[in-house]
Formats: sequence, C-alpha cells, structure tokens
Amino acid sequence: MQIHELETPTPVVDLDVLDRNLDRMARYAADHGIGLRPHIKTHKSPRVAREQLARGAVGLTCATTHEAEVMADLTDDVLVAYPPVGDARLRRLMGLPARVNLMVALDSAEAIEGLAAAAKEAGRPVRVLIECDLGMHRVGVTSIEEAIRLARLVTERPPLVFAGVNFYPGHIRSGEADRKAPLAQLGQDVRTWLAAFDKAGLKPGIVSGGSTPTAFESHQLPGVTEIRPGTYVYNDREIVSTGAAAREDCAFTILATVVSTAVPGQAVVDAGCKALGREPLRVGAGSGFGELVDHPEVVVKGMSEEHGILDLTSSTWKPKVGDRVRIIPNHVCIVTHLNDFIHGVRGDRVETIWPVAARGRAAKV
Amino acid sequence: MQIHELETPTPVVDLDVLDRNLDRMARYAADHGIGLRPHIKTHKSPRVAREQLARGAVGLTCATTHEAEVMADLTDDVLVAYPPVGDARLRRLMGLPARVNLMVALDSAEAIEGLAAAAKEAGRPVRVLIECDLGMHRVGVTSIEEAIRLARLVTERPPLVFAGVNFYPGHIRSGEADRKAPLAQLGQDVRTWLAAFDKAGLKPGIVSGGSTPTAFESHQLPGVTEIRPGTYVYNDREIVSTGAAAREDCAFTILATVVSTAVPGQAVVDAGCKALGREPLRVGAGSGFGELVDHPEVVVKGMSEEHGILDLTSSTWKPKVGDRVRIIPNHVCIVTHLNDFIHGVRGDRVETIWPVAARGRAAKV
Repeated sequence: MQIHELETPTPVVDLDVLDRNLDRMARYAADHGIGLRPHIKTHKSPRVAREQLARGAVGLTCATTHEAEVMADLTDDVLVAYPPVGDARLRRLMGLPARVNLMVALDSAEAIEGLAAAAKEAGRPVRVLIECDLGMHRVGVTSIEEAIRLARLVTERPPLVFAGVNFYPGHIRSGEADRKAPLAQLGQDVRTWLAAFDKAGLKPGIVSGGSTPTAFESHQLPGVTEIRPGTYVYNDREIVSTGAAAREDCAFTILATVVSTAVPGQAVVDAGCKALGREPLRVGAGSGFGELVDHPEVVVKGMSEEHGILDLTSSTWKPKVGDRVRIIPNHVCIVTHLNDFIHGVRGDRVETIWPVAARGRAAKV
Repeated sequence: MQIHELETPTPVVDLDVLDRNLDRMARYAADHGIGLRPHIKTHKSPRVAREQLARGAVGLTCATTHEAEVMADLTDDVLVAYPPVGDARLRRLMGLPARVNLMVALDSAEAIEGLAAAAKEAGRPVRVLIECDLGMHRVGVTSIEEAIRLARLVTERPPLVFAGVNFYPGHIRSGEADRKAPLAQLGQDVRTWLAAFDKAGLKPGIVSGGSTPTAFESHQLPGVTEIRPGTYVYNDREIVSTGAAAREDCAFTILATVVSTAVPGQAVVDAGCKALGREPLRVGAGSGFGELVDHPEVVVKGMSEEHGILDLTSSTWKPKVGDRVRIIPNHVCIVTHLNDFIHGVRGDRVETIWPVAARGRAAKV
C-alpha cells in the first residue's frame, strides 16, 4: 500500500527516523552508563516499547494504570510515575501480573498509607520513589525534610520498599544555550538533596531524572542513575524548539487532505483539534498548532474539531481541494492519545500498522 | 454502584440534566416547526442519538465517516456535514447501507465531481447541500454566484440531487445582548442568498442552520427549515458563557481525584489534557480549562498530559490527597473524543455506562 491510498486524517510514522531516534537515545544512555526507562506515554504502543527494550531499556515508565497493564506484557520492570491515589487505581495496580516488579512515584503520606494497605493486602512488594520538586512545581515534595520524612515512612511500611527518588526537569525547555544556567542549578540541587538523603541513612538506589529536552545532558547531573524520556521516539515542534532534536528527527506526522479552499487566504484540511490536538508552543517558539513538512512556512493557524485552517499568507503555495499534506504537531504525545492506529512508512510505502493499545483508560463499570 | 467507586479520571453525565436538555431543544424545534437534525459530534454515542430520534429528530448530522457508519444503525437519514473529499472517504460513504438516504454538505466543484463519480459508480443517489459562508470564514462558498454555480453543477451530475443549502453561524458566540446585531445581519444575509437561489430557479428544499449558541433564535432567521445543534445535550463552560444554557444545564463533568497537594497554593488532580482537553475559552468568557462544580471559584489553571493544576488562590477550600472533584470542561465535544466510556448517573448512583462508539476513525489498512 502507498501512502497516498491512506484515508485521512491519520498518523504516519517514518520508520527510518523512528529507528534513528531509538538508536540515538539508547546509545547515549549506554555510553554514559545511565539506565534508560522510557516513558511510553508518547507512543502508548507495544510495538515501539518492544523496540526500546530490545535496545537495552532497563524497564518502562507509565503514567496511567491502563498503560501499565498493557506494558506489563512486555517487561517485568514497570515504573508508574504517578501518585497511586484512589481505591480503583490501587486495585488495578495490585492486579498486575505477580512477576512484575512494580515501582511507583509519589509525594504524600496519604499516597504511602493507601499504597501500603493495598500492597499488604495483596502480599506484593512495591518499590517506591519519592518524587521531589526541583523546579517544575507540578507534583513533588518541595522540601528536603519532607522528602526524607516520606522516605522513612516508606521504610516503616513493608511490603513497601524505599527505592530512591525521582524528579522531572520539565521546566527546563529553553534552547540549548539558555538552559546552561538552570541545568547547573538543577545539578547543584540534586547534589544537595542526595547528600541529605545519604546523611539520613537513606541512600537512594535509584535517582530517576530526565525528559527529552534535557535527556542528552543527564550525565551532567550528579548521581542520576536512570532517565525517563518519552517524546524522543517521535519528536515534535516543541522538542525541535528546545534544540534536543532537528526538524528531520520528527518521525510522526498527521497526514491530512485539503477539503476546502473556498475562503481566500487560507486552505482547510481535515485535521482539526480532534486529530491534531490544540497544544500551544511556548512563547517565542513559533506560532500555530502544527507546520507542514513540505511547506515549513505554512502553519495550522486555527482549528475546529475536524477542520484545520492553514495560513497561506506567507506562502506562494496554492493548494487545491484534494491535495495532501503532512503536518508536524506541536506536542506529539497528545496526538497519539487522539488516535487508535499508527501507520509506519518508509518513503511512500506503508510498511505496517500498529494499534495505540495503551490509549484511553479501559475503565468500565 | 455509587459515583465514589468509579476510577478516575472518567466522564460522568447527569441523566436528569441530559433528559432536560434533550427535551428543551426538541420542544423548541417542534414549537417552531423547524426540523432538528442534531450533530452527534458532541456525544458520538448511539445511546444519546437514540434519545434524540425518539424525541422527534428528523435525522442525524455527522462530521466523520466513522460517525456516519455508527449512526446509520439508528436512522436512515444521515447528513455528513463535511466535504466528501478523497477516495477513501468516498468509498466508506458509498459503503453505508443502501437504505440510508445520504446527504452531504460541500463547497467546491472538485468535491462535487469526486462525489458524483463515486455515487454514479455505486448507483446511489446522494443529496447535496451547498455550504455557504455567512460569516464564519471556515468553509463555505463566499459569493452567491459561486454558490449558485455549484448548485447548478449538482443538478447536472445525477445521481446527485440538489437538496438545499447549509451554513454554520459558529462565529456568533457572544452573550445574548451582544449577538442581536450579528443575528439580524445573518437574517438579512440568509434572506438575500435564498432570494438569489429562488431567482435562479434553484429553490433550496432544505435550509440548514443552527448551532447551540444561537439554536433557540433559529426561528428569527427567515427560511431556515432545519438546525444542527450538537453541544446542547451536555453543554459546557463555553455554552454557558453565550447564555444559551445555565451552569446547572451542564450535564457532563470529568470526575477527578486530587493526587498531590505538595506544591503550595495549588492542588493537582488526575485530569490533565488527555482527559479534559486544552480548549481555551473565548477572551472575556473566563479563565482556565475547566471549573469545579462544587467550587466554582476554582479553575484548572494549567495542565500536563495527566495532571490538572487547580488554582486555589481565590478559594478557602483546602483539598486533601484523595478528595474527589467534578470538573465542567470548556468544550465538551473535545472531551468526549478523549474518552471511551461515559457513566450515566442520577444523584450519587451510577445508573448506566455507554460506549463512545463513534470515537476515533476506525481506519485500518
């Protein structure tokens, strides 16, 4: 099958670029002796996870219980990097196959107590990472004392096992030059926190950091044993804007069709926010909700649910109804979640198709 | 089952409110002798579509081919209000059961020629609406002459049948007082366009307008025979901001759990943009990506993929890890598309669950 035969809108992944992205991160981690535990939120696909494991990933990182359930078929080492709060969530986590060596990240005593009760009832050891806020200000304890208090609480709640700490440097998304100072600060903070844990007699076995924008600088952070990048498999406009990937490293595009040119100065494609998401770029990183592979000067300037409005004012391109375009999304992880199948292509040939099996919640009554 | 037993994040629909919303629109249409052909993009669910048909809907409106395939099991009268461009799309449309009296909306000669060829090959009559741009500037022909030229082209391409015209007043979203003038202008434009069609000997049998914000004013527009509102079944913050529904008419919420309170001044819930979407409100209509049913002063101020950040700075509420909240989304149609199942509740009792069967594209190789 050729790419022009595909119904649109549909996600298309360039398999050569995907392979290259997978190789590059695996090699970086191996070269620096850092464990790679990729976050599968970006692809939600066993097909891609298998490739990551085949290249030496030490395990997989998930956010949702459904992701963990799907990925448990591929690895025995699963980190759920999300606070395990709520009876239903705990029940599902405890229901993972017994062979799975589960690890979770959390930041509260409430989460520890709930998990401890569930783990005890299930007779299941669970490794715990204490999530530390080192600047992202999303989740994570904000003081060293509180982090140590929680780590100690974990040690007092068998079958929980204190495994280490994790942090997410998602606030560092600036270009390579501008992130030198925040990275240096982060390195200093990590050193301080780890020293405090050591002093408390709670040396973290695992120090888990990393995200795609800073992944290739992880070796500059003292003590980091693992990284959890996700987006690197596909990349997107946001990652390109951070300098962590080049435009030609974007493996994932939405194939779309021009369906209307009736209104002057624009063309309408069949990829709206239900196909492409409505994720903004950071201020200064560019405009629009996606850009055309073949016409980088053309961005998706606006969207309805099933309509994407291409801004033609900076282009000499004159699209016709029926023309096809490939769009690089701003934030690919969101786009994956909107779609059920991915077409893998080499050149113009559609080589394979795979399900986004960990999409959704699989939550029924 | 009680609502507190549900795993989060999950969509919850208040069945009493849903019934009331369905009744209200059906009654309005009946009272004014206007055909109601609801757009099912909002719910994508046979369960809700059946209720709309039972209340007298003349047919259903869809955007995607998959929506049309799913809804064809419930009605013989389907409008695909989307340009039928591309071989794969046409093939699927022509594959709808023969009993379905298909109608499509389009705005180009290219779309007409493609559809005519496919319809001829399939031996299938297809009714065509010419989409007119009356101010939305998304799709739709912008000149009366072009609209008439396309209508005439349809009459020359059997088995296509010229059925009428449609427009989408989606640009009129201001509050009730502020939309008097644009509505009056729209009424005048509709009158002018219809007169020109009449004069050309192409009297439109169907004049299809309407969207939820202006639906209850459709009788003020001359000649409108049908309306296609979608969002009215659930409503959302955006609709409330237009005055077309009250806050208590919002039937659809996302049930979420507080998973972290570690960072001061905020709480984190497990509904991020993969559960709640990242649709902005119009400027002036409010801030954030959703608001809490029980704490209207608290909005979701920021989101990651699986994290929603509640802004607590204007509230005296002190959430604890494990607390549950219900969030009214900004734009519910997007949220439906993110989820696979809907829980229907009355009070605290979970009465039913239904699949979002027309979600996604169902597109395979």
